[in-house]
Amino acid sequence: MNASNENSKTSIPSQTDIPFTGEGIFPKGGKNEAYARYFTGTSYLNMLSLERVVIGNVTFEPGCRNFWHIHHKGGQVLLVTGGRGWYQEEGKPARELRAGDVVNIPPETKHWHGAAKDSWFAHVAVEVPAEGASNEWLEPVSDEEYDKLGDCYVG
Amino acid sequence: MNASNENSKTSIPSQTDIPFTGEGIFPKGGKNEAYARYFTGTSYLNMLSLERVVIGNVTFEPGCRNFWHIHHKGGQVLLVTGGRGWYQEEGKPARELRAGDVVNIPPETKHWHGAAKDSWFAHVAVEVPAEGASNEWLEPVSDEEYDKLGDCYVG
Repeated sequence: MNASNENSKTSIPSQTDIPFTGEGIFPKGGKNEAYARYFTGTSYLNMLSLERVVIGNVTFEPGCRNFWHIHHKGGQVLLVTGGRGWYQEEGKPARELRAGDVVNIPPETKHWHGAAKDSWFAHVAVEVPAEGASNEWLEPVSDEEYDKLGDCYVG
Repeated sequence: MNASNENSKTSIPSQTDIPFTGEGIFPKGGKNEAYARYFTGTSYLNMLSLERVVIGNVTFEPGCRNFWHIHHKGGQVLLVTGGRGWYQEEGKPARELRAGDVVNIPPETKHWHGAAKDSWFAHVAVEVPAEGASNEWLEPVSDEEYDKLGDCYVG
């Protein structure tokens, strides 16, 4: 609120000041081979919780994104932990994502998420528990759609 | 794996190299006044998700910890995002926590969590959804118990 506070703020770096290279708070894990056929580019998956609530840390190399998909019944909450990326629901403008952002994805909503072209990106994905929950994977996000995003709406 | 890799590793800081001062990936939010009566010291609470799955970012000042408590029915998953802290279940040694650690807390288990004496600490807390879930708050962690932790078991 005053000059001396401003100075101390700029001299102490915070976690989000660090250029994100894919190695963040949560370990990156190995290549996400189980879901590779639903991704354009290379992603990494490290499961953080397999019981009670399923939680995974997903890291995307620059340009990597998942295919359009739908979470049936449950939905998913994304907690962005590093880098810059995108979230888009069908028929809506893409939303730019940075560390600290949260996306609460409703069930039955066609969408995709992934890295910006020039940045690594990571989010923790919390699966919303629901009886009979399933994921439906659809078509890839085309290069044409993806390449337009640079100057897109920043949410 | 070789000298040049080692050098590049040490020259590029990662998110966890930054001294944690309470301001991390997720905004700290305001003082956690709603639950202050169940905490020793000052904590901060920023809700990240209020629908589908309840998720909050909890930040503890050095020395701050919550009272012994029990999650009935659901349980809770803690994702540690900064600093150094402790998690302890009744009758077990305390486990030291650092950024990247995950604690999967079963329901019906008496426990507490909080900061180390000399460090800020933050975790994202994911509530496990369950019908009829509730929290039971018990007695404070005494200074005597807490002060012993410096040279405790490191899990």
